[in-house]
Amino acid sequence: MSESLQHVVGQRLRAHRQRLGLSQEKLADQLGYHRTYLGSVERGERNLTLVSLEQLAERLGVDPLDLLRP
Amino acid sequence: MSESLQHVVGQRLRAHRQRLGLSQEKLADQLGYHRTYLGSVERGERNLTLVSLEQLAERLGVDPLDLLRP
Repeated sequence: MSESLQHVVGQRLRAHRQRLGLSQEKLADQLGYHRTYLGSVERGERNLTLVSLEQLAERLGVDPLDLLRP
Repeated sequence: MSESLQHVVGQRLRAHRQRLGLSQEKLADQLGYHRTYLGSVERGERNLTLVSLEQLAERLGVDPLDLLRP
C-alpha cells in the first residue's frame, strides 16, 4: 500500500517548515498550535479530519491539496 | 473561501456513483456502508478523517486524491 495520507501530510508539513527555516516550536507558535501537536502531525501520528487539515493549510497559507500530494 | 473539502469529496463520490449507474443504497451495499452514511458523505455533511477517506477510496478502487480534487 502506498504511503498513508497521514505520513504524506507529515512530510509535507515538515518540508514546508524547513523551507521557512523554523523549528517546530517557532512554527507552532506562529500557527497557534502546541509544539507537541505539530510534532505528532509531522510524524504522521495524527488522523486529521478534513476540517483540521483545511485549518492547518489555511494557517500555513497553502492549498490543502499541497499537504496531500507526496 | 473555496469549496470545503467535505463538499468536494461529496461531489466526487456522487459523480463516481452516477458513473457506475448505482443508487446510494446499491453502492452502500457494495462498499459495506450504511446508505444514510453514504448519503451524508455525498451531501458534504461528514468531516471525514484521513483514514476513513483512504478506506472509502480503497473500497471505491480510486486514489484518495481523486476524491479531493474539485
